[in-house]
Amino acid sequence: MKDMLGREHIITRNNALELIMSGLPERKIPSKVVDIDEALGRICSEDIISGEDLPSFARSTVDGYAVMAADTFSASDTMPAYLTLSGEVFMGQPPAMMLAKGCAVKIPTGGMLPEGADAVVMFEHVQIVDSAMLEIMKPVGPGGNVIQRAEDVRRGEIVLTKGHRMRPQDIGACAGIGLTNIAVHEKPVVSIISTGDEIIPAANKPSSGQIRDINSYLLKGMITNAGGTARKQGIFRDDYNEIRRAVEESMESSDMVLLSGGTSVGTKDLIAGIISDIGNPGMLFHGVSLKPGKPLIGGIIRGIPVFGLPGHPAAVSICFELVILPVLDRLAGHHEMLSSTGMAKPVVKAKLSKNIASTQGREEHVRVKLEEREDGLWAIPVISKSGLITTMVKTEGTIVIPLSLNGIEQGQMVDVRLFR
Amino acid sequence: MKDMLGREHIITRNNALELIMSGLPERKIPSKVVDIDEALGRICSEDIISGEDLPSFARSTVDGYAVMAADTFSASDTMPAYLTLSGEVFMGQPPAMMLAKGCAVKIPTGGMLPEGADAVVMFEHVQIVDSAMLEIMKPVGPGGNVIQRAEDVRRGEIVLTKGHRMRPQDIGACAGIGLTNIAVHEKPVVSIISTGDEIIPAANKPSSGQIRDINSYLLKGMITNAGGTARKQGIFRDDYNEIRRAVEESMESSDMVLLSGGTSVGTKDLIAGIISDIGNPGMLFHGVSLKPGKPLIGGIIRGIPVFGLPGHPAAVSICFELVILPVLDRLAGHHEMLSSTGMAKPVVKAKLSKNIASTQGREEHVRVKLEEREDGLWAIPVISKSGLITTMVKTEGTIVIPLSLNGIEQGQMVDVRLFR
Repeated sequence: MKDMLGREHIITRNNALELIMSGLPERKIPSKVVDIDEALGRICSEDIISGEDLPSFARSTVDGYAVMAADTFSASDTMPAYLTLSGEVFMGQPPAMMLAKGCAVKIPTGGMLPEGADAVVMFEHVQIVDSAMLEIMKPVGPGGNVIQRAEDVRRGEIVLTKGHRMRPQDIGACAGIGLTNIAVHEKPVVSIISTGDEIIPAANKPSSGQIRDINSYLLKGMITNAGGTARKQGIFRDDYNEIRRAVEESMESSDMVLLSGGTSVGTKDLIAGIISDIGNPGMLFHGVSLKPGKPLIGGIIRGIPVFGLPGHPAAVSICFELVILPVLDRLAGHHEMLSSTGMAKPVVKAKLSKNIASTQGREEHVRVKLEEREDGLWAIPVISKSGLITTMVKTEGTIVIPLSLNGIEQGQMVDVRLFR
Repeated sequence: MKDMLGREHIITRNNALELIMSGLPERKIPSKVVDIDEALGRICSEDIISGEDLPSFARSTVDGYAVMAADTFSASDTMPAYLTLSGEVFMGQPPAMMLAKGCAVKIPTGGMLPEGADAVVMFEHVQIVDSAMLEIMKPVGPGGNVIQRAEDVRRGEIVLTKGHRMRPQDIGACAGIGLTNIAVHEKPVVSIISTGDEIIPAANKPSSGQIRDINSYLLKGMITNAGGTARKQGIFRDDYNEIRRAVEESMESSDMVLLSGGTSVGTKDLIAGIISDIGNPGMLFHGVSLKPGKPLIGGIIRGIPVFGLPGHPAAVSICFELVILPVLDRLAGHHEMLSSTGMAKPVVKAKLSKNIASTQGREEHVRVKLEEREDGLWAIPVISKSGLITTMVKTEGTIVIPLSLNGIEQGQMVDVRLFR
C-alpha cells in the first residue's frame, strides 16, 4: 500500500497507534456535573477528594461487648475476666454512656464505640453470668474488632483520580462521603461517514449490485460501548467532493471522524487522498501489518483524528479495538492501564482445535467458536471470507497469532478475547 | 446460621443458586419492539430469522477481472491465457453485460458478478496487453475470489436466537438483512430496600452513630450493568412491620427484591423472619459458605426472588456477582453459557505476591491490586476489614480460593476477575 507520494506506509499497529497518539494536540476536555446515580461508566474530570472522615466514628465490626482491651488481657476459658455490664449501644445512636474501667457495653455490628472503649469482644467469647455480670473468655487487643474513625477514608484524601471510569463501587464510595454530584467529562463525539456507491440505508430494499449499510451500525455499537457518542452522518457516494465535504462538515462538531465502506482499491485511494489533501498534517499511515484490517488509513486533520476503515465488518471490528479504541479513550479523558492496552476485554482460556498457519511479520486475528467438551473448553477457528458479517455473529471471540509466529498448533492453550 | 425453625441452612453458593433457580416459576417475559440503533445490550425475545439472502448476488472479494474459471485452467507465467476485455462492472450497479467464453470483465471488490462469470482473477495475476486484450498468468478455480449469493445468510436462516444479548456485530447483521426493528425483552425491575437504623440518605449529614447509604448506589450500578432496571424504594428502620410492608409493596412492581444493610445478627434475623413469614414458600437458605458474603439470605415469595444481602459493600458485590446476577439473567430472558457462569467477567493472569491462607470448605474471594512489574503482572492481595468501601475502589479485582483448597502460594499464577 502506498501513499499519494508513492511511499510505502505499512507499519505495525503499535506504530500506527503511536503516530496518532503523538500527533494529537493537548486539549481540555469539556466536563459537566452529574448526579452520581447517572455517573455509571462516566470519566471523572477532577480528582474526587473527601471532605470528611469515613466512618466519622469508631464502629464495631462484630456483635459483642465494647470494652477496654486492657481489662481482658489475662482472660482465658479457665480464668475468665469479670466485667460489669453497664448498658447497651443502639444502632444509629450515639452511646448514652462513657465506658468505665472494669465495665462492658453491649454493642451491635456497626454500632458506635462509647468513649473509653477501644475494642469489642465477640458474643462467642462471652458468658453471661447474670444481668449485670459477664465472663470474658478470650483477650482482645486494642482496636480489636473495631473500624477506626477515618479508617475507610481520611478527610482530604483523594478517593478517585481524574480520568477514572466510574464503576458501581466508585459510586458507592462517593455516596459514603456524601458527594452525590460529581464532575465528569463530556463524551467524545464520533462521526461515522459511510461511503460506497453500492451502499444503501438498512431500511431500504437493495437493487442488484447494492448492499445495505452494516458498518455504521457496527461502529455505533462499539462507540457506545466505549463510552462515546456516535453520530451517523449518512451514506455518501464514492465521489471526492461529496466525501471531502462530509469530512469537513463532520469535523465541525466531532472529536473523531470515521470513514467506513469502500472495499475497492479505488475507494481507499480516494479516502487516503482526501485525508492527505485536507492536510494539517493529514494522513499519517496507510496500511497496517494486521489481518484482517490491513487497509486501515489513519491521520490527523487540524487536531482531529480521522480514520479510513476497511469495508469488511470483521476488519472494522479489529481495527476499532486495536487502534481506534485507545485513541477514543484518550479523547474521553480516560487514563487507565487495563483499558488502554485492551487487557480489560474479557478473556477465556481454551484449547485450539486445529493448526492455524499465519504469515510471519503480520499480526493475525482469527475468529473462533467456543465449545464446552468433557475435557474443557475448546476454541474452533472459523476461517471464512472476511466480507461476511455472520462469521462475527456465530463466533464468540478472537485469538491472536503475533507478528513473530507463523502459526499455532492444535491442542495449544490460547487466550480467546470475547466479543462484547 | 440457623433459620426460624433452628435448622442449619449454610450451603455452597452453587446449592444456593440451584435452590432459587429451581424454585422460580416459568413465566413469559414481556417484550417490545425497538429500533436496532437502540437495541445494544438488549435481549432478543424471538429468534431473528432472515427474510432474504445476504448477499443477494454473487460479489467479488478482490479487485480484478471476472472470468469463466475454465478459461484460465492452463494459465501460467510462461503460458498465459489470453482473454478479451469486454467491459467493466461498476459498484452498486448490475453488470451491463453477460460474460461470453474467452472474455473478462473488470470488477471492483464488492462488485456484482456478471452472468456467465464464476470466478475473479486478481489484478496481480493479470498483464494488460492492450485496451482489449489481457494475459492471465495464474489459473483460478470456480468460485475463486467470489462470495456466493446467500453465502453470509440464507433466506429463512435463524441469524440470532431468542435469549441472545445484542452486541454491535449482531446489530450489524440485522442491518445487513434489512431488519431495522427487532423484538427485545423488557428489562427486569429490581427493587432495592435499604434497611438499618443507622443508615441515612447519601445527601444528608450523618450525626454520631449514623452512616450514609452506600449499598443502594452500589447495587443500582451493578443492576444497571447487568441490564436490569433498579428501583430504589428508600431507607427503612429495623422494624418488622416497616420492612415487611416495604417488601410487600415492592413485590407489586418488581421482578426481584433486594434487601440491603443490616450488619447485625438482629437485623439479619429480622429479614430472614420477614421472608419466611410472608412465605409461599419464603426463605430457601440462610448463609452460604462464602467469604465475604456468608450471611446471604435467599428466598422466593409468590414467584419473586427475594435476597437479604450482608451489610458490607464487598460482601454485597460478591453475593451479587455469584448468586444474584445469574438469577437476574434468567429473569431478563438471557440464555448464554458464558454470562450465566460468570465466565464473561474480564480476567487477567497475574502472579500472586504473597501466600494467602483460607479455610477449607469455604470459597474465599480476595481483593487484589494489580502491579505491572518488569517480570509481568502481579496481584497484590489487599486484606482489610470488610466494612470498607475504599478497598473495593483501590483494588482492581478478586481472586478465588476454591472450597477445596486451604490457600494459594506466593508466585503462583492466578486468574484476577476484574471489577467492571
